[in-house]
Amino acid sequence: MPMGMRTSQEYKKSLKMMRPNVYKFGELIRDVTTHPATRRTIEGHAQIFDAAQKDEYRDRLTTISSITGERISRYLSIIASAEDMIENVRMKRLMFNITGTCTGGRCVGFNAINSMWAATYDMDQELRTDYHERLKTWLASAQKDDIALAGALTDPKGDRSKRPSEQEDPDMSLRMVEAGADGDIVVRGAKVMIAGVAAANEVFVLPGTGYKEEDADYAVSFAIPRDVKGLTVVEARHPSDGRDMETGFDNPVDYGGITQGYLLFQDVHVPRERVFMAKEWRYSIKAVLNFIAPYRSAIGGCVAGQGDVIVGAAALMARANGLSEKVFREKLTQMTVNNETTFGMGIAASVMGKLHPSGVWIPDAKLANVNKVHVSTLPYETKRLAQDIAGGIAETGCLPSSEDMHSPEYGALLQKYLKANATGETRARIARLVEWLTIGEGVPGCMHGGGSPDGAKLIISGLSEIESNINLARKVANIKEDVPAPDGKK
Amino acid sequence: MPMGMRTSQEYKKSLKMMRPNVYKFGELIRDVTTHPATRRTIEGHAQIFDAAQKDEYRDRLTTISSITGERISRYLSIIASAEDMIENVRMKRLMFNITGTCTGGRCVGFNAINSMWAATYDMDQELRTDYHERLKTWLASAQKDDIALAGALTDPKGDRSKRPSEQEDPDMSLRMVEAGADGDIVVRGAKVMIAGVAAANEVFVLPGTGYKEEDADYAVSFAIPRDVKGLTVVEARHPSDGRDMETGFDNPVDYGGITQGYLLFQDVHVPRERVFMAKEWRYSIKAVLNFIAPYRSAIGGCVAGQGDVIVGAAALMARANGLSEKVFREKLTQMTVNNETTFGMGIAASVMGKLHPSGVWIPDAKLANVNKVHVSTLPYETKRLAQDIAGGIAETGCLPSSEDMHSPEYGALLQKYLKANATGETRARIARLVEWLTIGEGVPGCMHGGGSPDGAKLIISGLSEIESNINLARKVANIKEDVPAPDGKK
Amino acid sequence: MPMGMRTSQEYKKSLKMMRPNVYKFGELIRDVTTHPATRRTIEGHAQIFDAAQKDEYRDRLTTISSITGERISRYLSIIASAEDMIENVRMKRLMFNITGTCTGGRCVGFNAINSMWAATYDMDQELRTDYHERLKTWLASAQKDDIALAGALTDPKGDRSKRPSEQEDPDMSLRMVEAGADGDIVVRGAKVMIAGVAAANEVFVLPGTGYKEEDADYAVSFAIPRDVKGLTVVEARHPSDGRDMETGFDNPVDYGGITQGYLLFQDVHVPRERVFMAKEWRYSIKAVLNFIAPYRSAIGGCVAGQGDVIVGAAALMARANGLSEKVFREKLTQMTVNNETTFGMGIAASVMGKLHPSGVWIPDAKLANVNKVHVSTLPYETKRLAQDIAGGIAETGCLPSSEDMHSPEYGALLQKYLKANATGETRARIARLVEWLTIGEGVPGCMHGGGSPDGAKLIISGLSEIESNINLARKVANIKEDVPAPDGKK
Amino acid sequence: MPMGMRTSQEYKKSLKMMRPNVYKFGELIRDVTTHPATRRTIEGHAQIFDAAQKDEYRDRLTTISSITGERISRYLSIIASAEDMIENVRMKRLMFNITGTCTGGRCVGFNAINSMWAATYDMDQELRTDYHERLKTWLASAQKDDIALAGALTDPKGDRSKRPSEQEDPDMSLRMVEAGADGDIVVRGAKVMIAGVAAANEVFVLPGTGYKEEDADYAVSFAIPRDVKGLTVVEARHPSDGRDMETGFDNPVDYGGITQGYLLFQDVHVPRERVFMAKEWRYSIKAVLNFIAPYRSAIGGCVAGQGDVIVGAAALMARANGLSEKVFREKLTQMTVNNETTFGMGIAASVMGKLHPSGVWIPDAKLANVNKVHVSTLPYETKRLAQDIAGGIAETGCLPSSEDMHSPEYGALLQKYLKANATGETRARIARLVEWLTIGEGVPGCMHGGGSPDGAKLIISGLSEIESNINLARKVANIKEDVPAPDGKK
Repeated sequence: MPMGMRTSQEYKKSLKMMRPNVYKFGELIRDVTTHPATRRTIEGHAQIFDAAQKDEYRDRLTTISSITGERISRYLSIIASAEDMIENVRMKRLMFNITGTCTGGRCVGFNAINSMWAATYDMDQELRTDYHERLKTWLASAQKDDIALAGALTDPKGDRSKRPSEQEDPDMSLRMVEAGADGDIVVRGAKVMIAGVAAANEVFVLPGTGYKEEDADYAVSFAIPRDVKGLTVVEARHPSDGRDMETGFDNPVDYGGITQGYLLFQDVHVPRERVFMAKEWRYSIKAVLNFIAPYRSAIGGCVAGQGDVIVGAAALMARANGLSEKVFREKLTQMTVNNETTFGMGIAASVMGKLHPSGVWIPDAKLANVNKVHVSTLPYETKRLAQDIAGGIAETGCLPSSEDMHSPEYGALLQKYLKANATGETRARIARLVEWLTIGEGVPGCMHGGGSPDGAKLIISGLSEIESNINLARKVANIKEDVPAPDGKK
Repeated sequence: MPMGMRTSQEYKKSLKMMRPNVYKFGELIRDVTTHPATRRTIEGHAQIFDAAQKDEYRDRLTTISSITGERISRYLSIIASAEDMIENVRMKRLMFNITGTCTGGRCVGFNAINSMWAATYDMDQELRTDYHERLKTWLASAQKDDIALAGALTDPKGDRSKRPSEQEDPDMSLRMVEAGADGDIVVRGAKVMIAGVAAANEVFVLPGTGYKEEDADYAVSFAIPRDVKGLTVVEARHPSDGRDMETGFDNPVDYGGITQGYLLFQDVHVPRERVFMAKEWRYSIKAVLNFIAPYRSAIGGCVAGQGDVIVGAAALMARANGLSEKVFREKLTQMTVNNETTFGMGIAASVMGKLHPSGVWIPDAKLANVNKVHVSTLPYETKRLAQDIAGGIAETGCLPSSEDMHSPEYGALLQKYLKANATGETRARIARLVEWLTIGEGVPGCMHGGGSPDGAKLIISGLSEIESNINLARKVANIKEDVPAPDGKK
Repeated sequence: MPMGMRTSQEYKKSLKMMRPNVYKFGELIRDVTTHPATRRTIEGHAQIFDAAQKDEYRDRLTTISSITGERISRYLSIIASAEDMIENVRMKRLMFNITGTCTGGRCVGFNAINSMWAATYDMDQELRTDYHERLKTWLASAQKDDIALAGALTDPKGDRSKRPSEQEDPDMSLRMVEAGADGDIVVRGAKVMIAGVAAANEVFVLPGTGYKEEDADYAVSFAIPRDVKGLTVVEARHPSDGRDMETGFDNPVDYGGITQGYLLFQDVHVPRERVFMAKEWRYSIKAVLNFIAPYRSAIGGCVAGQGDVIVGAAALMARANGLSEKVFREKLTQMTVNNETTFGMGIAASVMGKLHPSGVWIPDAKLANVNKVHVSTLPYETKRLAQDIAGGIAETGCLPSSEDMHSPEYGALLQKYLKANATGETRARIARLVEWLTIGEGVPGCMHGGGSPDGAKLIISGLSEIESNINLARKVANIKEDVPAPDGKK
Repeated sequence: MPMGMRTSQEYKKSLKMMRPNVYKFGELIRDVTTHPATRRTIEGHAQIFDAAQKDEYRDRLTTISSITGERISRYLSIIASAEDMIENVRMKRLMFNITGTCTGGRCVGFNAINSMWAATYDMDQELRTDYHERLKTWLASAQKDDIALAGALTDPKGDRSKRPSEQEDPDMSLRMVEAGADGDIVVRGAKVMIAGVAAANEVFVLPGTGYKEEDADYAVSFAIPRDVKGLTVVEARHPSDGRDMETGFDNPVDYGGITQGYLLFQDVHVPRERVFMAKEWRYSIKAVLNFIAPYRSAIGGCVAGQGDVIVGAAALMARANGLSEKVFREKLTQMTVNNETTFGMGIAASVMGKLHPSGVWIPDAKLANVNKVHVSTLPYETKRLAQDIAGGIAETGCLPSSEDMHSPEYGALLQKYLKANATGETRARIARLVEWLTIGEGVPGCMHGGGSPDGAKLIISGLSEIESNINLARKVANIKEDVPAPDGKK
């Protein structure tokens, strides 16, 4: 067992010991590790700790700290090379393979550390601040404690046509409301749709973008314990989450699950050593761009990893239905093409990146954003094909509940009639898995997670080399006349 | 108000008076009209009765009986012309427009009547039976009583490589187990994934296909009251159906909802006058083909009708987010293209049909099956685009529950932060509607409903005129040499 | 043989007798019926005359004149009902089946007559003009003479941000330069990319759109003999048109071919009785909209008709390669789906139309424009699949010339090595046909023919019922709050 | 200028000095560097030599020989690392950027050297042959002479259901007909659709696959001068190649062009030192698989490189039409997504490869074949979008010839009417470029080049880890029952 790295038991124990501040369905969750609404996501994240202990996964899930030289979780490491970035993509694929879904309480935090590693370096270089040193110190400690670190980016924003300082309600983006002489700050506002917060020990907060000088109070970045005073977490609903509260197999996955929380900051105090940006508004865009490129690369691994499970579930359903998966070869191959495309584009973006002076490797922005476009389309085809292969039983609303399957009155009849090339019970379980993956609790937010596809397209368009391509075209056909862009015409 | 047609109150009262035989979650539902698991689907079906009373919808939802000359529900009529069939497609679109989803407790029965109208006619002509007369008598009475009639086609089937009589368990398809001298029969088996049964007064049962002489007992068709002795109905789960049991707006639709039931026939007695096929195994394929063509035409109207609501919900969400729907014009136009395509193909299949000697109009099989292919793909793009437009709030798992929104502790904070170009509450309600339509309870089974797309492709392939097309190609290019198809080669 | 209808011999003779005014490659074509650049398109159009004489096609290609009661070519008829419009769609499919490509020297004229039939009626009703009577008289004569009538719509336009009268060069759209007291007019300008002019006896000219009062001179419509004084026709190049000049089979189609011409009007005199609009600028938009709906409906038949030949050519190539077309069933089925979709949408638009007071049936604009979107995408997939099935030999640039195949030195070797499940010569001929259909001379302009897909999308968007759909969404989810569209925001 | 590397003048001179053995249109081409049928492809290949001399491209087009330590053309190098492979992908993109199309007379040879580098190594190791040494010696000399080396893989094959030795005509795949005691061999047969042969000094021949012991004579690999005795080359036609013979701008590209030739081997003698496989039939499959992976990776660069020019040409056409390319942002972004996808997947396959013991880097087969699937679909969408953006003028058959544009009679009128935001002449030239790229001479064979997409799908399917994915699914949902694959069922 790697020195200094926690077991899943230690991890869960640490969560148990935290102040209860997570709510769902209007109620406070006393113990996130046992409450049905949060238990599964924590079991999912716990598997990261378990897998890190296994020889076969050790190199994928752990690495050597560039700060301390100790073996640490890859989720707390600085990505220093293309190879590190590739391992990141593969790690995401692996964790989706194991849990069937997202363990988002770690990857956003991981990305956030790396984006701020570069941004704090730039600030220190240019502004003579000491943010980078603070971050290094905090990170060394986080690595030593092997914490689960969530990351928080999205602000509520309010009226999208106005900047934060122009909003009627100044709290619509998270902001500093006090700055102590000692460098401590107090923050107010919210971060919304934050993945895996219930499963996290701490949360790393990033600033938003689009700020001008008047918005300086909104340019804040820091790390806080998830149970810090003044912070309330409300976990959002997801499809079919009523089944979390049931026994039976209608939520077919016990060791994996997604949560997305609303973080309500009611004047939370953040000590100086945990503050990594405070008013340096010009740097918030950098922080976010540094965040986007690796995030949109690695998400290709996520989607491929779930895609692998979808391929398996569809093929298994076909078998249980009594049909050879050979019948569906064309469809299964297309699903594989989709999986390998988001994975491959993540690899390509990783490789074509470049090293930031701070030592962080930043993937190629154009390829990363192209991948985001694929991530927002290809999995939808993969899921549709899975429903196509799996048949009516797995589509939507076509299978009685686990309770009905075991009814003393008619359960035996349902079991009898559901039997095919597997028992009725097994067929039903597989069908529930297909449902979970394609239209149920396992569906992650791959459309807007990490930003919208339209945002990605804007970046691609901005990075497109239209003038340069026009010049290629002109040279190839030897076109001499200057053809100016028509101004303001449509 | 049309003579002889029921009000929604009368309809609901008739359901209340039926023997309780519908179960869900292991429990008997005492009153389907008030129980949360079935209430919404009945409210959806009730709107058919309400709309039929309104001037603006009367001609779409009612017509004149070819048997009695009285005004009747279109759902109980014989489709006698292309115009009737077009009105069928439009009626489906309308009902999805009104309820947001499927009112499948009527359209399958409607189709079944029509397919058996032709099949019984053929049997009577060729076999000197009197099935057509029986059907006519039963239908006249059903029209008079203005019943809600579900239709049941899908058998469990068991091992798909064997015919019904070859199965280890002979009950895997519904079959006659007794035939009385008086023409009465007793049936055993199941019909599965049957839409809207809880909302129906009666169920019309169709035979399956692929029968040989040994399978004659499986060639049965009949109509029975939904609460007939020996019949047990178990309603299947659908996504997020736990929300049906809640108050609040997390199931955002109160007057519409889908159910799909498993019908367990434990030696059900069917009197002679309700039996429309009994052992005439050669005619079962006709019955099913007659069923498929209109079903796969009209489902284009269903999908378009829900698509209209999806367009509206996405545009409304964009507005509530503070974005002009003009930003999304390309996407909204594509959604409209998808809607009009399944609708248009339904119209085309209707028009290009032909009249069966019994007086039933049968749409064109090739165009109907092409439409089935579109119905199993285009709505998935429409839903993906809706999630794209609507933003993270409406995607999956990104919005707190209705209960949380009203929490005395932090509900006001959630409302505050969710506010944009609409109150937080309204934004949340719209987001729930988008979720309901795209990944929630409103998603109908358009992939396998009415049969699988692979089945449709087989029919298209069978109807394709490859030899004739090859001859066109040969003539166009004046190719004289005979090029035989290579036998058995790959 | 129908009374009064010409044979193909008479048709060709009439072309021979016309004044030579068609040019290509810088040279005047003395006899369009024999010159290799125009011969094939005329042979294609001649088949319309031949087919009209055959019993099997008579009802598709001819109809009864609503003016004279005589049997006439359908291409010269008024479309008076949904049935007429359906026959139009089917006629297009048939002619593509027979010639492999477009016989555009007739269908645009056919559409033009119909659109102006309505527009002249409206003008006469509202302005007390006599255009409709003139058109009727001219049309009765055209029907009697059974002329081939091309139609001309597209103006060069120049700077697209300015209206015709604002252009630096006033001739950039066709315009009246003189109006005689007798009602005769003189016109100048050009119509460009006009299909099948070489094969036409006369040309029917339509006005453009987007006119204001200052542009009144541009609102002109008339019919003229193709060889009228002052008119010069320059035929455009198409892919591989060098092969037209060769012998051998490298242009594999002898009885079909496309031309698109530039019509240069150098002060052409048009007598009063042939003038159907002169300065009535408010009516030009009507004329064009009347034109678009039937055109974009019927083009679905064109694309399906060529698609039938593409399916046949691909399957024949597979056979000749020694592969069973069964291997390609999925692809061939997709091609059939594409063909039936454009055909079906054409039918649907036809059926859902309505009758104009003048007696012209106008198809549904929304469905017609949805079809235009399909017509600009689906055939591209069909062609790609054909190249996929056909193998490298038929893709691009992979087959020696007909001359090489017959070289005394090495022709026998080529024939030897090209042999598979057919002789080398036959395989080569089929490959040339696939090339001709997918990347060669047979490819029609289905992207911009009849207007651009972006134009179609604009119309669809304009016809979309977003507000109405929003209301459906609101009602379904019982959303009360008014959510106004954010003004001018993005 | 790099030592030992040829200038384009030296390259062209070397071609001039070769024995004329290239034919087209039934005639022998005396000087391939000046004959219009081959001149352009040679000018395209010449630019490789020119670019290698330029500082900006030197590192992309040249590298250091692992054999001699000298700077050599990358096209003659051994790919020894992921970085080398990435440079290969980029080099392809660059050369398409510069020439607008394929310079296939070098890349296939490059791939062939590398695949045989590994295969000869394996043979030598296992069979104690000396092929690897021969190859090394020949390659050192080829590097020194800086030759242009084409590669030849595809056999005619004849009846595809039979192996080579089973064919009626034993010559349907290339074979040894004599083996001298000295190790020299004599070969007969053909290689077909071979790119860029006219532009090559030598040709590297690969064996096919699917051989058993009886087919040993077909397992041959060797390099020969392109003008070797007994070899006849017939160049195939490509779209619009008649324009090669014209002056004017209708073939708009003077310094680039594709050829694909048929190589007829009439008992060609190959000396021992140029023979790299002779009868080792078990190794032919290795040779081909080694070939496929890098080829299908690098072709992503080709397609992206042409895609860059297509983006530029479409945007330039829009400008010349007077429309801002901003109007087409969505389409141009999609084209960029397509370009970056094939490029990125090529990079990913490169990076995820592994080192063969011979020192050759072999890209990942699954990702490479996924890329082949994209290469056979995405460019078709890119071209369609280019035609969509460019308007009718650039679609097909809508622009008069260069000769007509300059006609003394009406050329000025055509120029006048074609003027928009550029002169008529420039608009026409750009339109010709769009045509050339999308439906003309510039279209490369990306569907079947390097093998068919169906072949790629078979490999993907073979490499798919269905069992492993099924196990993932089982673990995620804790499914215990064994569900065997149904045997032989459909």
